[in-house]
Amino acid sequence: MYKKIDEKDVAYLKSFIPEERIMVGEEIPNDYSHDELGGIERLPDVLINVLSTEEVSKILKYANENMIPVVARGSGTDLVGAAVAVEGGIMVCTKLMNHIKELDESNLTITVEPGVLLMELQAYVEEHNFFYPPDPGEKSATIGGNISTNAGGMRAVKYGVTRDYVRELTVVLPDGTIEHFGSKCVKSSSGYDLKNLIVGSEGTLCIVTEAVLKLLPLPSESVSMLLPFKSMEKAIEVVPEIIKSKASLTAIEYMSLDTIISAEDFLGKKFPDTNYEAYILLTFDGNNRKQIEEEYTKVAELCIEHGAVDGYFVDTDERKKSVWSARGAFLEAISASTDEMDECDVVVPKNRVADFIKYTHEVAKIVGIRIPSFGHAGDGNLHVYLCRDGMPEEEWKAKLEKGFDLLYARAREYHGQVSGEHGIGYAKKSYLAKQLGDNQMNLMRGIKKAFDPNNILNPGKVI
Amino acid sequence: MYKKIDEKDVAYLKSFIPEERIMVGEEIPNDYSHDELGGIERLPDVLINVLSTEEVSKILKYANENMIPVVARGSGTDLVGAAVAVEGGIMVCTKLMNHIKELDESNLTITVEPGVLLMELQAYVEEHNFFYPPDPGEKSATIGGNISTNAGGMRAVKYGVTRDYVRELTVVLPDGTIEHFGSKCVKSSSGYDLKNLIVGSEGTLCIVTEAVLKLLPLPSESVSMLLPFKSMEKAIEVVPEIIKSKASLTAIEYMSLDTIISAEDFLGKKFPDTNYEAYILLTFDGNNRKQIEEEYTKVAELCIEHGAVDGYFVDTDERKKSVWSARGAFLEAISASTDEMDECDVVVPKNRVADFIKYTHEVAKIVGIRIPSFGHAGDGNLHVYLCRDGMPEEEWKAKLEKGFDLLYARAREYHGQVSGEHGIGYAKKSYLAKQLGDNQMNLMRGIKKAFDPNNILNPGKVI
Repeated sequence: MYKKIDEKDVAYLKSFIPEERIMVGEEIPNDYSHDELGGIERLPDVLINVLSTEEVSKILKYANENMIPVVARGSGTDLVGAAVAVEGGIMVCTKLMNHIKELDESNLTITVEPGVLLMELQAYVEEHNFFYPPDPGEKSATIGGNISTNAGGMRAVKYGVTRDYVRELTVVLPDGTIEHFGSKCVKSSSGYDLKNLIVGSEGTLCIVTEAVLKLLPLPSESVSMLLPFKSMEKAIEVVPEIIKSKASLTAIEYMSLDTIISAEDFLGKKFPDTNYEAYILLTFDGNNRKQIEEEYTKVAELCIEHGAVDGYFVDTDERKKSVWSARGAFLEAISASTDEMDECDVVVPKNRVADFIKYTHEVAKIVGIRIPSFGHAGDGNLHVYLCRDGMPEEEWKAKLEKGFDLLYARAREYHGQVSGEHGIGYAKKSYLAKQLGDNQMNLMRGIKKAFDPNNILNPGKVI
Repeated sequence: MYKKIDEKDVAYLKSFIPEERIMVGEEIPNDYSHDELGGIERLPDVLINVLSTEEVSKILKYANENMIPVVARGSGTDLVGAAVAVEGGIMVCTKLMNHIKELDESNLTITVEPGVLLMELQAYVEEHNFFYPPDPGEKSATIGGNISTNAGGMRAVKYGVTRDYVRELTVVLPDGTIEHFGSKCVKSSSGYDLKNLIVGSEGTLCIVTEAVLKLLPLPSESVSMLLPFKSMEKAIEVVPEIIKSKASLTAIEYMSLDTIISAEDFLGKKFPDTNYEAYILLTFDGNNRKQIEEEYTKVAELCIEHGAVDGYFVDTDERKKSVWSARGAFLEAISASTDEMDECDVVVPKNRVADFIKYTHEVAKIVGIRIPSFGHAGDGNLHVYLCRDGMPEEEWKAKLEKGFDLLYARAREYHGQVSGEHGIGYAKKSYLAKQLGDNQMNLMRGIKKAFDPNNILNPGKVI
């Protein structure tokens, strides 16, 4: 169905992309054949490090006319194969499009190219006393990648997700047309919301080449507290109580002892406390120290009433470093603890988090597999890992399938979603289809067709 | 193209809708032929006051099979003809679907039917110490209507718009299928965002029959301040300064003296001050009185530095009533001041508000027409009214067209949007098409086709 790239195609692409930014066939490093999880592998036929919207436009126009698949990629930190060229073709890498183009203080927006890294964006705006709230664990992901999966992160409890901070997108449609979806304006009731359709569409509808993001003033105060509990049940059952108390929290993270130990081993660094089964990490922020103190005192008392054994402020530089570096390393630490793993990134209503985590333990027993997890308890988004631990290939595949089937079935039962923030990509398509049913999948296929009638953009993904 | 409703169709509809909830032909009150602005008129052939999702499903299934147009309507408070049956057919009125179904305190959500009025929802949640932030001026609009136009209102500066508070929608597709888009979950990266596509789609893609809305804890404190200025320029030019100061404001409303006088005349009630040309109304809210005091002191000082002549607290019950009832009556007051009017609901980047209001005065002079306005200065959304003031029909039409052309052209130049919160409906289609261009309009048509291949849902609207 797709055209195999030949010398003529390469010659055309090289007519406007200089040698140093285009690689063909064996010149392409193996890194570009997979994402961070690495379960899905294929190299593109051509890799282009693009510099501008106009280059992307020219590439897509040609690819569309010649039926060549195109996949956009940022840092390649995704976990579901969304940035893998499963049909070959051209990979458009945006990592050189990494310029911050405008900080607009009177509209509280920043305009960036898609290759800007999350950590670069955060550092830049904080230097200017602004705040970009979305805070996924993977700080070396690009903003383009964050937009493509509607990344959420730890502060979603209070501040929402990437979608809530995208005001305008410059995109290139599959036929090469350049369009602007949305605007700097706060409000809009002007036709169907194309901008929100692109956020979370994993590069299947168009390629984002510029984004205008909403900023907030930087809160002057931020306080975190670590609360140990004697059991996992006690720890996660406190979360709905915290939410019901109407306290204003920025983050509520759940950590189990085994995951913390993995992170200690991985980092070679001690966590402040490893005497208990489970921990809840709470963050509060704002501009008024006294108000924050009132909030955390109220919440700490409530937690102790519900079984917290202690409460540590994560206040010294040393403690902050030890807690946040552990939290930031969970995924890599679990990955390092086994030969292969796959992930379930479900999100469930907040009052179902405890039940779901308990169920992961049941599934581990039923299937006979290790299933460590951690997650954003405050917004219902859990990161659950199924570990191979040296199992033979066939046994692993069978157990993985059985484990996933059970976990996703339970998420459906709880009216949850297949993915909270990592996306569907290639790996989770069957679970999305089961969750949404034929009607919704057909609506999505209709939308895909309206954008990409030749199906050249990131084929084989999402739908 | 559409089938004209005949006796057989009516008989079928009456087979499952009892007599008292269905009206045919001349039985239908004239109110259902137009919306609040009244420029576009046609009665539906059949009016049904629906009670359930299942009824809507049966009606749509039949209408789709028989090519009968269907328009959903709530309170009919819209201003662009979105809820007018311009092709006749069936009107589905949701005003009896007005039940609050669940207040979920552990997920901070409320589940409502679409016919619940905004004022009913606000009163209910505040009684339970929760807060539904979207606050459009028209409190007797239904939530279904608010969702269909992504209504914004006064608190958008701090809290965002209706879209930001819609977690899940139960919808009936044109073929009668019942689907759930979104979920109670805070995060999602699970395929294209169908829920956000429905918000703001003005009943052209499906009919919303239930909504799960996000709530916040009710802020304990709210303070408003009224600041008079000697000129319109002085008043609106202070707004970007307020925003740049990074103060946390809930609302920044702009009011001109002539609009205030119209409201005084209309209500027969005095406004606290009418000695100056223009006023800015500021609102602050939160849980800490002291922090709010710090904020408003800072902002009041900044306003006085930039030309505010005085600053009144809107604190006594009497003063609150006089200011907020005036603010709530602006639209009706302007409407009562003339024989006919039409509205331009543009939104521009916040730092363009002053320039745009100044331009409305220029246009008034160029075209020779009265153009009062008021608006949400803090989010860039202006409500601008072109008044007929007794002009002969032909002159009025010509001046209206010229005025609109000039205003929308300037909004495009400022990278604004055709509508901030009132929608496109029937009346603003040509301006949307000009704003977005053929590519985006074609994408929207492709989306419409994926949802409604027979074009039976609210035909002739938006696209």
